[in-house]
Amino acid sequence: MNTLHVDLGKRSYPIHIGAGLIGNPDLVIPHVRGKQVLIVTNTTVGPLYLERALTAFPDKRVETLVLPDGEQYKNLEILNRIYDCLLGHRFHRQATLVALGGGVIGDITGFAAASYQRGVDFIQIPTTLLSQVDSSVGGKTGVNHALGKNMIGAFHQPVCVVADTTSLDTLEDRELSAGLAEVIKYGLIRDPEFFSWLQQNMDALLERDRGALAYAIERSCRNKAEVVARDETEQGERALLNLGHTFGHAIETGMGYGSWLHGEAVAVGMIMAADMSMRMGWLDHDTVQRVENLIDQARLPTRAPGELATDRFIELMGVDKKVQDGRLNLVLLHAIGSAVVSGEFPPALLRTTIDDHHAITAKRGLSLR
Amino acid sequence: MNTLHVDLGKRSYPIHIGAGLIGNPDLVIPHVRGKQVLIVTNTTVGPLYLERALTAFPDKRVETLVLPDGEQYKNLEILNRIYDCLLGHRFHRQATLVALGGGVIGDITGFAAASYQRGVDFIQIPTTLLSQVDSSVGGKTGVNHALGKNMIGAFHQPVCVVADTTSLDTLEDRELSAGLAEVIKYGLIRDPEFFSWLQQNMDALLERDRGALAYAIERSCRNKAEVVARDETEQGERALLNLGHTFGHAIETGMGYGSWLHGEAVAVGMIMAADMSMRMGWLDHDTVQRVENLIDQARLPTRAPGELATDRFIELMGVDKKVQDGRLNLVLLHAIGSAVVSGEFPPALLRTTIDDHHAITAKRGLSLR
Repeated sequence: MNTLHVDLGKRSYPIHIGAGLIGNPDLVIPHVRGKQVLIVTNTTVGPLYLERALTAFPDKRVETLVLPDGEQYKNLEILNRIYDCLLGHRFHRQATLVALGGGVIGDITGFAAASYQRGVDFIQIPTTLLSQVDSSVGGKTGVNHALGKNMIGAFHQPVCVVADTTSLDTLEDRELSAGLAEVIKYGLIRDPEFFSWLQQNMDALLERDRGALAYAIERSCRNKAEVVARDETEQGERALLNLGHTFGHAIETGMGYGSWLHGEAVAVGMIMAADMSMRMGWLDHDTVQRVENLIDQARLPTRAPGELATDRFIELMGVDKKVQDGRLNLVLLHAIGSAVVSGEFPPALLRTTIDDHHAITAKRGLSLR
Repeated sequence: MNTLHVDLGKRSYPIHIGAGLIGNPDLVIPHVRGKQVLIVTNTTVGPLYLERALTAFPDKRVETLVLPDGEQYKNLEILNRIYDCLLGHRFHRQATLVALGGGVIGDITGFAAASYQRGVDFIQIPTTLLSQVDSSVGGKTGVNHALGKNMIGAFHQPVCVVADTTSLDTLEDRELSAGLAEVIKYGLIRDPEFFSWLQQNMDALLERDRGALAYAIERSCRNKAEVVARDETEQGERALLNLGHTFGHAIETGMGYGSWLHGEAVAVGMIMAADMSMRMGWLDHDTVQRVENLIDQARLPTRAPGELATDRFIELMGVDKKVQDGRLNLVLLHAIGSAVVSGEFPPALLRTTIDDHHAITAKRGLSLR
């Protein structure tokens, strides 16, 4: 087992990464202040890991709540079911919430913890690759709104994260690939050596080689933790973590939550961001191709859905949080391993990028997924 | 005009107190970062002050949202109407929300600001005495849940508070008295000199003497600001501000939101807390009587509703946030001007206090309000 420390002063916390960690009381009990524990999970993860997770909390009064599985349930209505459960069992301020599942469970449980009685503790037990490398680090919590993704939320750090690599054994191939999109992102924005490592080890990762996965998770978390420690509430550098996300959010929102996976949308978004960076004169064509190739190697989609016409696509990008006073800021690339937030692009260039992306898709006659 | 500064490091902010301040751009514009402003008000305050408030934001893109008036609307459903409005108008992270109204508007707008895109700025323009002396200081925001009051929320400090004493001219007598309950509270918990001043000046306050009101607001805010500056997230001392609130919440929740005003319930709660402090041997009977007399002088109710039988009353106190791991903590008094948080009372004493309170009410044959 490896343990990383996310350094946020009083809100610092450990991330434990390794095989067979779910169910180990030594990792979580030191972080539980009171007697009351609520484990929130979903209908997919619950049957697989809830029983094991319960053994990590001996001598606690543990309640469980099993939510429906899917991004379309990350909303205020389902959030209210967590509040109902907490209040129904008279949970107080010393209670601890535990998120057992992927990013959706982590985000919604984290926001419930952030807002229940103005803030209670929570522990993350991420069970997907995406949540292990992304949402478990950094304290972003929240729910979606019909008009925009992650529009309602809070920064609320967990007291502890337990990333058990054995939980990836049961992950669907599609979910594994979606997680790899965020792994690739760290290489792209700040770690070119890691990008090269991924080019060489993608097959091992897809075959779920436990050593390769543990290495990729740790290096991803380390990258993210460094960024978050310097900019907890996203005033500057942290925004780089949104590479591909503004394009990606347009795809996710436009196609309806739950249709495209977050990582799939981000994968295509990163290709579009690389393409646009080339049009800005920052990347050459070969580099864009390297990006697309690695994403393809990870068995991720590389093309946006043709249904989302350019006008609609741009409109959907507009409500994203990366808009500052009417100006759209995008994360673009100066090189593999070097990203920048920029609002200094000609608006027409964004339109051309999306138009050409669609045109190439049509020309290749690609079926999208 | 007087200006107080609430000292919270990076989150410090000014409170301006005086006559005719609504509509003065000089007080608010320096705190507005972007172009987008949403003023949230209600059907009572909007017709009176919205037009004037709008003149404080020249050259901004101002949207307005008028919510129904009442504590029963401080819930997730109405909160979602604020999100709808923000997203419908494509508000981004540099937007500023303005709460124009009483405590309900301040709490719900503040929580919308805390949670929209994980936090945007907000300005408080409290128009009731209660909100000017209480909810405008300290950053507590939130909404109610069917199973408990203020159970969902966040700590989120405003960037600026404008307390216009002329807005009290239009306040109903009952609302004015409700505000005085919280004013009296500051005397009780930490300012015995202020308590004496209130005994001497209660009539002037009830006659809405502007000088007396401005003095009472400033001294109340100063007391609260001192407490909050030392304990922003209520780990210790800040809990003293909850004097009367655990009893009071039982009354508010038990009678249904919107039936008793918050200040009315707190007034009775403070009498019950004083009574219980006497039973602990900390206060003499005359002191309890002084408390009850001042509350009566402020034209506040002094007796709990007889409908709330003792068992139900205690049950309703149990889900209050002041419960630590199953132990109920109450704010009690060692003297006028000296409060303490205590869980060290015999449980039977709480029951006796409520029983006797009801018995005395019945004996006096009081109609409750």
